[in-house]
Amino acid sequence: MTTLITNGTVVNATGTVAADVLIDGETIAAVLAPGSQLLGPDLKASVDTVIDAQGKYVIPGGVDAHTHMEMPFGGTFASDTFETGTRAAAHGGTTTIVDFVVQYAGENPLDQYALWHEKAAGNCAIDYGFHQILSDVQDSSLTAMDELIKEGVTSFKLFMAYKGVFLSDDGQIVKAMQKAADTGSMIMMHAENGAVIDVLQQQALARGETAPYYHGTTRPWQTEAEATHRAISYAGMTGAPLYVVHVSAKQAVEEIAAARDRGQNVFAETCPQYLYLSLEEQLGAQSDEWGSFEGAKWVCSTPLRSRAEGHQNHMWQGLRTNDLQVISTDHCPFCMKDQKELGLGNFAKIPNGIGSVEHRLDLIYQGVVLGEISLPRWVELTSTTPARMFGFYGKKGVIQPGADADVVIYDPNAHTTISAKTHHMNMDYSAWEGFEIDGGVDTVLSRGRVIVDKGGYRGAKGDGSFIKRGLSQYLV
Amino acid sequence: MTTLITNGTVVNATGTVAADVLIDGETIAAVLAPGSQLLGPDLKASVDTVIDAQGKYVIPGGVDAHTHMEMPFGGTFASDTFETGTRAAAHGGTTTIVDFVVQYAGENPLDQYALWHEKAAGNCAIDYGFHQILSDVQDSSLTAMDELIKEGVTSFKLFMAYKGVFLSDDGQIVKAMQKAADTGSMIMMHAENGAVIDVLQQQALARGETAPYYHGTTRPWQTEAEATHRAISYAGMTGAPLYVVHVSAKQAVEEIAAARDRGQNVFAETCPQYLYLSLEEQLGAQSDEWGSFEGAKWVCSTPLRSRAEGHQNHMWQGLRTNDLQVISTDHCPFCMKDQKELGLGNFAKIPNGIGSVEHRLDLIYQGVVLGEISLPRWVELTSTTPARMFGFYGKKGVIQPGADADVVIYDPNAHTTISAKTHHMNMDYSAWEGFEIDGGVDTVLSRGRVIVDKGGYRGAKGDGSFIKRGLSQYLV
Amino acid sequence: MTTLITNGTVVNATGTVAADVLIDGETIAAVLAPGSQLLGPDLKASVDTVIDAQGKYVIPGGVDAHTHMEMPFGGTFASDTFETGTRAAAHGGTTTIVDFVVQYAGENPLDQYALWHEKAAGNCAIDYGFHQILSDVQDSSLTAMDELIKEGVTSFKLFMAYKGVFLSDDGQIVKAMQKAADTGSMIMMHAENGAVIDVLQQQALARGETAPYYHGTTRPWQTEAEATHRAISYAGMTGAPLYVVHVSAKQAVEEIAAARDRGQNVFAETCPQYLYLSLEEQLGAQSDEWGSFEGAKWVCSTPLRSRAEGHQNHMWQGLRTNDLQVISTDHCPFCMKDQKELGLGNFAKIPNGIGSVEHRLDLIYQGVVLGEISLPRWVELTSTTPARMFGFYGKKGVIQPGADADVVIYDPNAHTTISAKTHHMNMDYSAWEGFEIDGGVDTVLSRGRVIVDKGGYRGAKGDGSFIKRGLSQYLV
Amino acid sequence: MTTLITNGTVVNATGTVAADVLIDGETIAAVLAPGSQLLGPDLKASVDTVIDAQGKYVIPGGVDAHTHMEMPFGGTFASDTFETGTRAAAHGGTTTIVDFVVQYAGENPLDQYALWHEKAAGNCAIDYGFHQILSDVQDSSLTAMDELIKEGVTSFKLFMAYKGVFLSDDGQIVKAMQKAADTGSMIMMHAENGAVIDVLQQQALARGETAPYYHGTTRPWQTEAEATHRAISYAGMTGAPLYVVHVSAKQAVEEIAAARDRGQNVFAETCPQYLYLSLEEQLGAQSDEWGSFEGAKWVCSTPLRSRAEGHQNHMWQGLRTNDLQVISTDHCPFCMKDQKELGLGNFAKIPNGIGSVEHRLDLIYQGVVLGEISLPRWVELTSTTPARMFGFYGKKGVIQPGADADVVIYDPNAHTTISAKTHHMNMDYSAWEGFEIDGGVDTVLSRGRVIVDKGGYRGAKGDGSFIKRGLSQYLV
Repeated sequence: MTTLITNGTVVNATGTVAADVLIDGETIAAVLAPGSQLLGPDLKASVDTVIDAQGKYVIPGGVDAHTHMEMPFGGTFASDTFETGTRAAAHGGTTTIVDFVVQYAGENPLDQYALWHEKAAGNCAIDYGFHQILSDVQDSSLTAMDELIKEGVTSFKLFMAYKGVFLSDDGQIVKAMQKAADTGSMIMMHAENGAVIDVLQQQALARGETAPYYHGTTRPWQTEAEATHRAISYAGMTGAPLYVVHVSAKQAVEEIAAARDRGQNVFAETCPQYLYLSLEEQLGAQSDEWGSFEGAKWVCSTPLRSRAEGHQNHMWQGLRTNDLQVISTDHCPFCMKDQKELGLGNFAKIPNGIGSVEHRLDLIYQGVVLGEISLPRWVELTSTTPARMFGFYGKKGVIQPGADADVVIYDPNAHTTISAKTHHMNMDYSAWEGFEIDGGVDTVLSRGRVIVDKGGYRGAKGDGSFIKRGLSQYLV
Repeated sequence: MTTLITNGTVVNATGTVAADVLIDGETIAAVLAPGSQLLGPDLKASVDTVIDAQGKYVIPGGVDAHTHMEMPFGGTFASDTFETGTRAAAHGGTTTIVDFVVQYAGENPLDQYALWHEKAAGNCAIDYGFHQILSDVQDSSLTAMDELIKEGVTSFKLFMAYKGVFLSDDGQIVKAMQKAADTGSMIMMHAENGAVIDVLQQQALARGETAPYYHGTTRPWQTEAEATHRAISYAGMTGAPLYVVHVSAKQAVEEIAAARDRGQNVFAETCPQYLYLSLEEQLGAQSDEWGSFEGAKWVCSTPLRSRAEGHQNHMWQGLRTNDLQVISTDHCPFCMKDQKELGLGNFAKIPNGIGSVEHRLDLIYQGVVLGEISLPRWVELTSTTPARMFGFYGKKGVIQPGADADVVIYDPNAHTTISAKTHHMNMDYSAWEGFEIDGGVDTVLSRGRVIVDKGGYRGAKGDGSFIKRGLSQYLV
Repeated sequence: MTTLITNGTVVNATGTVAADVLIDGETIAAVLAPGSQLLGPDLKASVDTVIDAQGKYVIPGGVDAHTHMEMPFGGTFASDTFETGTRAAAHGGTTTIVDFVVQYAGENPLDQYALWHEKAAGNCAIDYGFHQILSDVQDSSLTAMDELIKEGVTSFKLFMAYKGVFLSDDGQIVKAMQKAADTGSMIMMHAENGAVIDVLQQQALARGETAPYYHGTTRPWQTEAEATHRAISYAGMTGAPLYVVHVSAKQAVEEIAAARDRGQNVFAETCPQYLYLSLEEQLGAQSDEWGSFEGAKWVCSTPLRSRAEGHQNHMWQGLRTNDLQVISTDHCPFCMKDQKELGLGNFAKIPNGIGSVEHRLDLIYQGVVLGEISLPRWVELTSTTPARMFGFYGKKGVIQPGADADVVIYDPNAHTTISAKTHHMNMDYSAWEGFEIDGGVDTVLSRGRVIVDKGGYRGAKGDGSFIKRGLSQYLV
Repeated sequence: MTTLITNGTVVNATGTVAADVLIDGETIAAVLAPGSQLLGPDLKASVDTVIDAQGKYVIPGGVDAHTHMEMPFGGTFASDTFETGTRAAAHGGTTTIVDFVVQYAGENPLDQYALWHEKAAGNCAIDYGFHQILSDVQDSSLTAMDELIKEGVTSFKLFMAYKGVFLSDDGQIVKAMQKAADTGSMIMMHAENGAVIDVLQQQALARGETAPYYHGTTRPWQTEAEATHRAISYAGMTGAPLYVVHVSAKQAVEEIAAARDRGQNVFAETCPQYLYLSLEEQLGAQSDEWGSFEGAKWVCSTPLRSRAEGHQNHMWQGLRTNDLQVISTDHCPFCMKDQKELGLGNFAKIPNGIGSVEHRLDLIYQGVVLGEISLPRWVELTSTTPARMFGFYGKKGVIQPGADADVVIYDPNAHTTISAKTHHMNMDYSAWEGFEIDGGVDTVLSRGRVIVDKGGYRGAKGDGSFIKRGLSQYLV
């Protein structure tokens, strides 16, 4: 099965080029100057399929390094299964996710790892890898890290918040970091000061502050900045590479920038919600079909931040300065009905999460339209760097011979309106309702097969395979 | 004329891949998965030339963004002409230079620009572009900037030192930066505080401190750090993009890092001498065929810095953190005899400059061997980023269809010993005498033609053409 | 002649105490617990005069370390002579000024020093010292520094602005700093980047921006912050103690704070105008008896800063954090008529200066009322620290036996309204018209004599004597 | 009972003056110019006692704001009782201590407060106040804070280390800080990251690293710097004034300096051991009567730091820059025999503490001799500022009428050799054995009574009284 994508503009992380892409089976066979006769008089005629990308961008399929399909949380599950979530991702041009195996305190990491394989296997529309969450870091957890690295799970997520659920205490964090330093594996950190947040939440609830808005006010930027600083301090002491997830506070970016200036291997992602949405506008929302509870749609952690304080602009700046290297979604969808509603009358019981796995490429492309970032930077942030960061660049993240033929044809002349009515995620609302994008996904290939074509799904459950990852390609 | 480079490992800025490179005439026609039969049963047989790169790296030709061929300075001329200098560059795997048109105070920038074209045309072994030096920034200079941008000269170098020779006063700098901000062109800055250096030099000479060593002590790091801060301040006020040349002081890197963290478009290069050589070891040299004058070999500005103060390690760190983005040579060679000797008895009269245009790729590759940087970063620093920085990426700086077929085959199993006895630069000594490199340039192609093969020169005077550059591709 | 000040609250720099002050001739003989019988049954009866300070503060007389009486500038003279200016100072509770001997380029510093003695001798209402301005730093100027230190002039002011008038070039600054480091004397710096300001002024005038407001916009904070950084850099290189005058930009305070954190001997003052007045409100003033020229009243350098940018609040903060140690006035008054009017149609010709020598204690006391600083800090900023900074603490700046009996009785229950109608400075307007102060000067003693009593002047021309100062008492 | 101290040089925090001090009963009645006849022809004849201080300094009695007399810790008690410890303090010129009421987890703060009064009452040689330690911050603890403030206990110490003993968790810290912000009281913080230290200790012991030296290596500077940053972050969030105790790491000083520059009310002390002693030299000590266990003499927390890393010099710098405002001793003595020996074979069981209450004034005076600080700064650091910081300046901390007549006559011509053979603390060794001081305490008065005279003790058990303190006098 051979395909030629012709007449398009290939966008890689360092620039653009007018070039054709020849696909042979599951991989890219060649990238060619358009119209060259060198490779035979009529290449087009010799291939099975020709896709005309005239006027369109040909980009490596998106890599979303932070998703939580069917994650158990707060007595419910994230509403997208591996099946529905990866299909939605495909619609949005994301052809790889790295999801999280969840180990709650007391559970065995390797058992959970096996369980997650069961959940995903045979269900995914696109390729997937796993990070491993470690909640309580026991001696057996440290041993499990060695095992998991051999399995291609080379990144381990710890939490500085959610006591009794996910929280690792600081001693445990240090031990896991020592192991990461020894093995060259990556520590991913949910950097929020849970102890302080718990106090602020209790005090807010005692004052009768129960609406979703108070989710934001009880997780002030200081709790993120402090935890980020602390994680960086431990990483510095132990020599562990550190990747801070879902950064939303400008002061956290400043901590990360300072660490990077000192030469520490500290990396970070932000998410579309922290670029576009705000505490005032979303969490402060006061009227809708759910009444003043509407803000629950945007309850996620870290929380949306105040626009008046300038966090959103600082996130864009951080993407330009490369103090933030990756854009993920932290896709963790919950429906309003029966799920977000668990927090009616008590914001602390609202399941935390926003669903964006379908919209990441569009939302960040709009940043190109708005002049916030360049076209190559769009590809770098959403595909190339996440693949390099987590050890599977070359296979993914680039339009280059030998790479998996995960290719997205993106049309800058299309127009996309985001809505729950049209999205493919299993959510009864959209956090992005009414957002307008001056562009759109045209065609999506996963390992050489067209799985989305002009919005139509051409793939099948189980198309996706597990990716065994290596160590981060950002470490010398 | 077609060429296939086969069996090699292609290294681009974001990673490596086993791939073949097909060249058609002057440009790269395709990058192909090795052994693919898709493109005809026997591509090898159909091309004019096959180059076997088994076990070798296939990299984009080096781009040296800072050279001074036959530059008039201090009553003499840099000892490499465009002919000898570019030929030496080719031997070292550099296939593009960006040299400097010199306008001294009182001269007309456009006249000088024309004159430099005369010097270069028909003489170069490789392609070349021009930056324009502006010494005194008159109203006519500002108009000339518009003209030069149209000519493909989109970067303008100013000096904060060398009063009466190159120095622009601070008001002139601000005016040039305002114009750069308006046009999107780049200000390159020689950031040393000339006024302070002049005082320190006079005082040193008055104390009888005349040896080359005092060249270094009279240009202390503070004079570089202060000037760098000042240039950044002016760039911030005016909105001009700024590129700081030949950074050698760690405190200057800190100023640059701080500016970048604030989101300013501030960029910087360092040079091999600031990574490997030191004030104590080179400028303090005390005995040789030139007597205690031997240190003159390493008299350049900014000067070599104290190793005890840690500048060299900090330069490597800056390359890793991307606070330094480019490695150039500041190639400005002078022979000891008759040239450097002008400063016998008075270090201030030693022509400033070191010749390295031939050795840049080797010297930085050694940084890969030493574990200071990664293999893709080597290519990024020496080829991709300089091309992007100065507006000709796509044509140069990448192995990709459509690009000029400037390709270097680099052999990690070769070994290179640097010596004046074997180098091709027109210098009677080497600043790098005896340096050992665990690798070496194997074959060099410039626009599709092999010009260097196993050390033998296959090119001809005049092979190189002028490159009309666009604006920096780093600005959104 | 003996005086007992009784029943008051003595305020020194470290705290307050209920105590009586006994004066014998020109000096304080004792500070005593009120009502002690130890020192004789009826001390009150034995002294010539008893002053009842019930309910009032007894503070050391104010020390204004920055005034410019009858300074020649821009073809005119500051409108207060030593006679009128020091009398006005006395009314406001200031009992010592340190004024500036002016040496313009080409003049001999020692000749000017002699000339200034002639101006002041026999005319002053209060004691006075001199700083020496050095415009062009010649070898003879360096020699003069030695001579002047012997004379009790231990501080030397340089300018980084006012080309052709006051400006010292950077080489000259470094030479003067080297001498200061050798002698332990203090360099005072007018830190504004004159070269950039000159360009911005020319461009503004060319655009027809001639009103006083453009005085402010053409001296943006960057020009102050940059110059402050540069002066600090030179002080660091040379080891000179540095005192930055009239700081108004928060970014300049940040530079100073950073230097102090590094352990450099860097000090700074701000002035009342930078605490209370703003670019928008004063320089932007558009209608009055002088028409839109009214802003000229507040044309001073450094200029008033934007309130929206937060400079004023940051100055108060700097006073609290001790990053700013002194409050002076930079008293340099010009009348609107015939003087400020020189700049009608061209802001660059408006004589720079504001007159505040009479109001400093009141204006800063209001900061105590507003909760910005504490009562002891008021005394420290306006009297104790300037005396220590410039080498005459013990004689001045403290209520303590042995000190000159320069004492102010300040009434926190009085109320003061500032107005040109009632002030004693030789100005036809007040920069502070209508300011209300919740307190007021009650009685002023200079070396034991009451010179101001309830607003009435009891002194005489020539009461004041020259103070021969030692080196700064802040250096270990 | 009246006393006249004559012919001496009075040293206060802002400077020195030749003055006599007249004492009437327990307080200073007057400070007088020497030889004034104003106060009667022969004051000397009229007083009960004349002390001739010719050639000596007359300073306010030392205030040691951090002592732990008879503190229960690790199954033993600090070896100085209130009786022995305060007597030793008196010998060294310290006339006030502020000791710590200890509340361990589960104990009632007010009960402990009452208990501590029982321990101290009738036993002290000098006046004393109390800080309150809060280990677990319960709701009742917050109420107790209100009660204690009324009692004159206005400062509350929390620990970020010593889990299960002193540690407050981060939520508790925030709650206590909220209460401190509401009441204007001071939070004192033991800033070490206990969780990390616990891991490092366990790992060291598991490796067989049991000697005292490993006490230092398992409490690296990062654990202090991180905790200091975290405490400052919480203080910033809540608005609490913060005083960091026993700072020893330069990076901690940098955190404090940064907070102060931002305008936060953050203060800090260091101790003599962090100025003079080092990890290498003391904790690394290898041979003596206790064998390689000798390092136990200097086991204290925070630990001695590496001299190679420059902490000691940075502490002196911090004292000069006022980033450190107070010098306390953290006097917490344990004998080697039976006490320190508890840690033979396991450094983690060595009782933490060094005894210095007797030597603080001498050791810091030596800093004056060495040129590290000025004479007034000596008084400010050891007496004036601790009194202002903790709300009893005016009564203590200054030579001024109305103040308690706590006066030390210090002889710069004396010489002191520190030794366990001669010291008065209840310790069987001295951490300062053999230290030579170029000066010495001559006479000590406590509330008007001579209690130490030329080394002889003239006081009695129970001389000292409890000081009811107000809020810090450093807050506006």
